[in-house]
Amino acid sequence: MKLVHYQLKHPYAQSRIGVVKDNKVIDLHAAQQELIDQHKILADSIIPADPNAFYQQANLHIKHAENLLEQIKHYSTTHVFERDEVVLHTPNPNPSKIICIGTNYRDHVKEMGGELPEYPVLFSKFNNALIGPEDKIHKSEATDKLDYEVELAVIIGEKASKVAKEEALNYVAGYTIGNDISARDLQKRTPQWLQGKSLDHTTPVGPWLVTTSELNDPSHLAIKSYVNGELRQSSNTEHLIFDIPYLISFISNLITLDPGDIILTGTPDGVGFAMNPPKLLQSGDVVTLEIDQIGTLENRVIKK
Amino acid sequence: MKLVHYQLKHPYAQSRIGVVKDNKVIDLHAAQQELIDQHKILADSIIPADPNAFYQQANLHIKHAENLLEQIKHYSTTHVFERDEVVLHTPNPNPSKIICIGTNYRDHVKEMGGELPEYPVLFSKFNNALIGPEDKIHKSEATDKLDYEVELAVIIGEKASKVAKEEALNYVAGYTIGNDISARDLQKRTPQWLQGKSLDHTTPVGPWLVTTSELNDPSHLAIKSYVNGELRQSSNTEHLIFDIPYLISFISNLITLDPGDIILTGTPDGVGFAMNPPKLLQSGDVVTLEIDQIGTLENRVIKK
Repeated sequence: MKLVHYQLKHPYAQSRIGVVKDNKVIDLHAAQQELIDQHKILADSIIPADPNAFYQQANLHIKHAENLLEQIKHYSTTHVFERDEVVLHTPNPNPSKIICIGTNYRDHVKEMGGELPEYPVLFSKFNNALIGPEDKIHKSEATDKLDYEVELAVIIGEKASKVAKEEALNYVAGYTIGNDISARDLQKRTPQWLQGKSLDHTTPVGPWLVTTSELNDPSHLAIKSYVNGELRQSSNTEHLIFDIPYLISFISNLITLDPGDIILTGTPDGVGFAMNPPKLLQSGDVVTLEIDQIGTLENRVIKK
Repeated sequence: MKLVHYQLKHPYAQSRIGVVKDNKVIDLHAAQQELIDQHKILADSIIPADPNAFYQQANLHIKHAENLLEQIKHYSTTHVFERDEVVLHTPNPNPSKIICIGTNYRDHVKEMGGELPEYPVLFSKFNNALIGPEDKIHKSEATDKLDYEVELAVIIGEKASKVAKEEALNYVAGYTIGNDISARDLQKRTPQWLQGKSLDHTTPVGPWLVTTSELNDPSHLAIKSYVNGELRQSSNTEHLIFDIPYLISFISNLITLDPGDIILTGTPDGVGFAMNPPKLLQSGDVVTLEIDQIGTLENRVIKK
């Protein structure tokens, strides 16, 4: 199932949770209400329309959404929209945490001149940075060295504290694509990276959340980035130094993870900053990210 | 005005916003409703009972709370509780950001063996770490090197983007005390500090927010910490390398600040890790922090 956070293109439209199927968007809450009203089907639990409410109990609502999609096969629904009738936003706009993993692909560690990490390197972004698949990446005057980083993004589905590696994937709601846009000048002018990692409106995440029933093994996914059509990064999640189950277990032994939390799992080699000469992002550039079984996340850079 | 987030000591009591006056707690929302009902006083805006709603528009509600306190002088209120009838929680339990400043007192930079920063060093904590003045600091098995750091905490009152230094204090809701508890072993095992800074239930902030009408100049406040009554840190906010107006301006030029956001402004020298031999926190230790014009924040460490 591909979960989206969408809005109809009319004034004052609500932000709502939907599912993309056959390039159309089905509104989950409205489709469920229709089934209840028209066919007297009992629901175990109401699927919220609001993304914040949905992600607060992501795995519970995903389970009911999957049941609903099965029922719709028989009963059909009228709450279906063409792709061009809607705007897609970042799947979860208000996670309680965005945890990023640094230096987590061997070849990227090499190109950045660092050492292989003994433990996962954790840092963070704030929600001010989050944008969606149809938004522009803001290149502010604060930086001259804006760079792209394609990453597999994990969204947590239920509260996870001190979880074993073997159980870790049960706590995942699904997977999407993240662009860990980094202002290299700001990232590196102090020992802590945060100020180069969380500029307003710089971190595309999307276009949708592919839930674990559709993507149950994140360990062998091709991952690529392009700038203006030129291939820049090309790797596979099998090259992660610390894999997804390890990361969830590691983090949850220190920091309790909540439903909706986003983990950006690190980027492979090929970032612009490490090229000779460096190829950093300019206003007008288009960054295209691809991950197997998820899709494409494409954003244009604009001066702001 | 000293704003608190409190709860009456009875089952299912709500978390509410109050004001401490003469060692009693006045419930703001209920007192306002009483004035409206009994004396037909018109209110410009309802003061929310819920801390999350209150901090979403902190400066607006603080202004109305101050008007209300003036009116109560004439009309009095019945919504007043003795200090021992209530539990105090951390003033704002759900900030959208906790931004910490590293190495921001000259003598602390020296004791940690670093260099004077050219730019403020920003890092973060997440809300899983936040606790209040009556909570215990959890010492988990993940760390053997838990340390204290007294800090002046700033809570933002309204949205701040690209604010000038001269205007910066207008965006402040008020000040409180923070203990930037740090697991030195986890903080230093990777280049990024986050994993040593955001362990569950380790960051006391409180006991209350002193609003800017009561504390309008944060630049000359004595700041101290004690462990089991032994003085460990003693400095003054006049020794901050980057002062509060500078920090707000600096951060807001990169990251939009929202009402309720917490900035922990850095700690002076005297942390346990830098002592010879180190004096780190053990289960049972009591950490007492004092800042002029704010008060005392005292928490016991327990094994968890």
